[in-house]
Amino acid sequence: MLKVGLLGAGRIGQVHAVNIANNPRSRLVAVSDVHAPAADALAATYGIEARAADDILGDPAIDAVLIATSTDTHSDLIEAATAAGKAVLCEKPVDLSLARAEACLAKVRQTDRPVMIGFNRRFDPHFAALKAASLAGEIGKSELLSLTSFDPAPPPVAYIKVSGGLFRDMMIHDFDMANFLMGARPATVRAVGSAIVDPEIGAAGDVDTAVATLTYADGRIAVIKNSRRAAYGYDQRIELLGSKGLLQANNMLENNVVKSTAAGVVSAKPTYFFLERYIPAYVAEWEAFVAAMIDGTPMPVTLEDGISALAIAEAATHSAKTGEAVELPS
Amino acid sequence: MLKVGLLGAGRIGQVHAVNIANNPRSRLVAVSDVHAPAADALAATYGIEARAADDILGDPAIDAVLIATSTDTHSDLIEAATAAGKAVLCEKPVDLSLARAEACLAKVRQTDRPVMIGFNRRFDPHFAALKAASLAGEIGKSELLSLTSFDPAPPPVAYIKVSGGLFRDMMIHDFDMANFLMGARPATVRAVGSAIVDPEIGAAGDVDTAVATLTYADGRIAVIKNSRRAAYGYDQRIELLGSKGLLQANNMLENNVVKSTAAGVVSAKPTYFFLERYIPAYVAEWEAFVAAMIDGTPMPVTLEDGISALAIAEAATHSAKTGEAVELPS
Amino acid sequence: MLKVGLLGAGRIGQVHAVNIANNPRSRLVAVSDVHAPAADALAATYGIEARAADDILGDPAIDAVLIATSTDTHSDLIEAATAAGKAVLCEKPVDLSLARAEACLAKVRQTDRPVMIGFNRRFDPHFAALKAASLAGEIGKSELLSLTSFDPAPPPVAYIKVSGGLFRDMMIHDFDMANFLMGARPATVRAVGSAIVDPEIGAAGDVDTAVATLTYADGRIAVIKNSRRAAYGYDQRIELLGSKGLLQANNMLENNVVKSTAAGVVSAKPTYFFLERYIPAYVAEWEAFVAAMIDGTPMPVTLEDGISALAIAEAATHSAKTGEAVELPS
Amino acid sequence: MLKVGLLGAGRIGQVHAVNIANNPRSRLVAVSDVHAPAADALAATYGIEARAADDILGDPAIDAVLIATSTDTHSDLIEAATAAGKAVLCEKPVDLSLARAEACLAKVRQTDRPVMIGFNRRFDPHFAALKAASLAGEIGKSELLSLTSFDPAPPPVAYIKVSGGLFRDMMIHDFDMANFLMGARPATVRAVGSAIVDPEIGAAGDVDTAVATLTYADGRIAVIKNSRRAAYGYDQRIELLGSKGLLQANNMLENNVVKSTAAGVVSAKPTYFFLERYIPAYVAEWEAFVAAMIDGTPMPVTLEDGISALAIAEAATHSAKTGEAVELPS
Repeated sequence: MLKVGLLGAGRIGQVHAVNIANNPRSRLVAVSDVHAPAADALAATYGIEARAADDILGDPAIDAVLIATSTDTHSDLIEAATAAGKAVLCEKPVDLSLARAEACLAKVRQTDRPVMIGFNRRFDPHFAALKAASLAGEIGKSELLSLTSFDPAPPPVAYIKVSGGLFRDMMIHDFDMANFLMGARPATVRAVGSAIVDPEIGAAGDVDTAVATLTYADGRIAVIKNSRRAAYGYDQRIELLGSKGLLQANNMLENNVVKSTAAGVVSAKPTYFFLERYIPAYVAEWEAFVAAMIDGTPMPVTLEDGISALAIAEAATHSAKTGEAVELPS
Repeated sequence: MLKVGLLGAGRIGQVHAVNIANNPRSRLVAVSDVHAPAADALAATYGIEARAADDILGDPAIDAVLIATSTDTHSDLIEAATAAGKAVLCEKPVDLSLARAEACLAKVRQTDRPVMIGFNRRFDPHFAALKAASLAGEIGKSELLSLTSFDPAPPPVAYIKVSGGLFRDMMIHDFDMANFLMGARPATVRAVGSAIVDPEIGAAGDVDTAVATLTYADGRIAVIKNSRRAAYGYDQRIELLGSKGLLQANNMLENNVVKSTAAGVVSAKPTYFFLERYIPAYVAEWEAFVAAMIDGTPMPVTLEDGISALAIAEAATHSAKTGEAVELPS
Repeated sequence: MLKVGLLGAGRIGQVHAVNIANNPRSRLVAVSDVHAPAADALAATYGIEARAADDILGDPAIDAVLIATSTDTHSDLIEAATAAGKAVLCEKPVDLSLARAEACLAKVRQTDRPVMIGFNRRFDPHFAALKAASLAGEIGKSELLSLTSFDPAPPPVAYIKVSGGLFRDMMIHDFDMANFLMGARPATVRAVGSAIVDPEIGAAGDVDTAVATLTYADGRIAVIKNSRRAAYGYDQRIELLGSKGLLQANNMLENNVVKSTAAGVVSAKPTYFFLERYIPAYVAEWEAFVAAMIDGTPMPVTLEDGISALAIAEAATHSAKTGEAVELPS
Repeated sequence: MLKVGLLGAGRIGQVHAVNIANNPRSRLVAVSDVHAPAADALAATYGIEARAADDILGDPAIDAVLIATSTDTHSDLIEAATAAGKAVLCEKPVDLSLARAEACLAKVRQTDRPVMIGFNRRFDPHFAALKAASLAGEIGKSELLSLTSFDPAPPPVAYIKVSGGLFRDMMIHDFDMANFLMGARPATVRAVGSAIVDPEIGAAGDVDTAVATLTYADGRIAVIKNSRRAAYGYDQRIELLGSKGLLQANNMLENNVVKSTAAGVVSAKPTYFFLERYIPAYVAEWEAFVAAMIDGTPMPVTLEDGISALAIAEAATHSAKTGEAVELPS
């Protein structure tokens, strides 16, 4: 039984709390949050203790921590937790600064403690089925990957300003999916972006609509499309063209009812946002972490993976600003 | 907090046990089974006691029982449980004998205890969305209902022999869905059936492929198709034609991946069988029972509903044997 | 080059005229219509002569006639045309009276002239592909056939009154499709119907919503659903369950554009009615007739086929009126 | 009645010949081909004369010519035909050399004769419906366009060598569709490409898999994916994200039959290649040309449009070679 402390009791912390509690091989034993009422409320729900983060890290009875705090605290907490001997599952991104994240990695390596980064999409059953089909050779050799990732609506501009920008905050998921599905790191990245959804996003120095193209040393290509707004909901699709065919992972719809009237043939919309769409993914992500801890299966998403996605995001940010292609270290 | 005893620790009892345990407003406190090891195993999983059924019924600390035993014990247990002051959720069908079920109803009415029958499909989110759209008038007045219900593979012939026959065992679900979706009881039923999937089913006096047609006093029509075998999985679909359009509830697929190769464009199959397809339905069914108990919402499927479906099944069985249409009491 | 006279210049005659004219192996040489301006207009379009029907039948330079006149003239014209040595393609139904149609068949047999009945749906490329897949054994042995056939809107009541009723006028297409797809004639028919779309149809002694169930000597079953109204257009679908799977022929949509907005995910509607949906079917029907004439391929739909469908329609009409199942001669 | 001479009797010339002959307002009167037997065969089919191209251009009875010869003759023939007073519909591309095409335009402008370029995809009913929905504001303001365009199999390397390269030969269609759907010319183009389908294509100096990104002055973005190989057939799809929703034009399938077996749920493949997919588009293209000639409707695709697409193709070719973004003249 894995005993777990949860750092961060906000929206995403609450998602994880359910899964930690429901998993038969893990137990949620403590929670912390800089906003005490949030920690207290979550603690009450699960009949556990709200404690200070330091206190949790220092408790030898706790095996692992799940870091669901704000991004700017991730690196510090990863370092502190691993130094304290904890295993870690940390929400993405590792950090907004690639240099800081790499420094964090160096410290973690001194401890030999396992760190997993929460790229939840790898655990979506549809995407995982696509990956499995690709690995099984069902479409031959992969050639051209397309990722479509549209949020239903843009976040507040206040969030945008501290987000690190679309490439670090949003497209980083797709960079990780490209790493996951291509089984290789890209050689170059080219990105374009503009603020056409909301000019205030542009005024804040960010973009809301963007396309990135990745090339690989072996000639393969990946293209990623992001928009901060899709009026019809959360749009999360993958296409992978291979030498023998095409794999597509389509959206999950709210239900399977189709209504045909004089106005047309109407299906349900995609499930609204990541909390709805990725419920099974978060469950499976936690199961994979528990399995890595207890069964010794390989850590499915490493700190190195998190840093790779961040490095691509940083390069894409640069490319979109300068108009130049950026080469990535191999 | 509703304290619940589970009668029956077999396959379907185990499904309910999870939902009783996970629901924040109910607690599984005891389990019984005529096969002691089954009860012990389930009890161990949930850290509860395996007890005799009588003992559970006699325990004043238990508020409700969920009856998941073999069909031939349903009426007796419903009577005993309600006499003992318990609320009941009983798996379908109430009984194989309409007369016995009606006698059971008479006894239950003397107690004034609530009894819900487990027609799980009413709680399937897709079917519930179809019903909601129909009630909201989205296709005007309903006219013609079609239910398609194919099992992936026939049960053992030994099961067939004690099942009461396809109409009572399998199509009874569809008769209840017709009641649910049409909001009325049918006036007549006509049924045809044959044993073309497996001649041994015919030798056992049953059919494996059947069609029933229901007519309603106001001129509406419903048609139900059943087969004990669908090589591609569990096929559960509804179509409702109304004056302003058509509603269709399509199958839930194992995943949303589509593979296009020289061999064609291949989607995933429907989820395999009722345990996979109706997971959310069983959760919602239990929630509805708990809500009826705690919040006083109306009992969503009554014992009378169970008897109505059984009466139609009995009439359909007669029609299929004699070739005659059967009128149903209004 | 097959020289063809067209009897009937109405809506369906015009459909055939285009196909006769465009087929490289047939030539439209004359047209007749009891309404002279209709014949004149069509003749002008094709630069041919408008002539009396008798004159066309008596012209030795004409090889074949296409009969697209009103139903009550079909038998007489088939007899006269075959007696005059013409090959015939006659629109469905052969006649409203089974006895009259059988008498017509007897006369035709004396002439040895080929007669094809215009059951256009057999030539629909989607339905033909389904039939081919079934014949190729792709779903094993067929077991349960479902035909859905909804018109977009009911015809005028004046038409209903002379139509012979829904089973002879509309469902006759489906009876022929059942013969076509099952490769056998049914043993029994049961039908129910009601007038819920338009009470005036009921006042005229007809139904507008109907279900018929056919059983076959080998245990197979077919079920047919008809409605005179589908608010979303012409709904023409087939499902065939076999021992190894299911074949479905879905509707053809007006286009392949899908629009996703806050209101849902909207596809185009089915093509509106038979003139739009069955354009390729009418072309292929005529090609098949020409091929039978010139290449000696088998006549794809015989007069006997037309009479079989009519016999089932007559039995279904009787069943819907009396509530009884009707046995059909083998 | 438009009298038309056809220059080029090859595969695409034959497609146009049928449409010219079947259109009630045009008549095919002569054909030429440098390969005399091809011209003779086509002439025999339509009962017309095979003549020299010069002879056709010099015939005052001929109103228009359709140029379906090899690309390297297009500019010369356009100039000669317009100088001879003919209206012209010329297959794409105008030329492989942008400079030569611009010189051609200058000459054509001296004549004031109308020239249409055969970008057939604009006339595909699905794409045209998408464009109409966009113009009608059904998804608000357009923001992000995606074009997927995969051929079923690469052409012979011999063809590749004279094709001008993927961007001029294949993606030029998509550049024109971007112009058509965005209603504006792009400001920049970035392209990447590689030869992973067939290394011989790489050895010939070309790519077989490519992605181009277009940006527009108002911040909109378009992304185009091309592959010379899709094992499942011809893949031609469009997605347009707007402020209020998404429009998608999906592939046309060979038929609407769906087969469900233990192996999965299988739909038909997309229609195989452009000759099958774009039959209705070629018909509509010719109708639009005839309407422009006879009714005075605007020329739907101009020589300037052809040159714009070629300019983008040339820039994309440069970008893919150098890795740099290329700005396009406004």
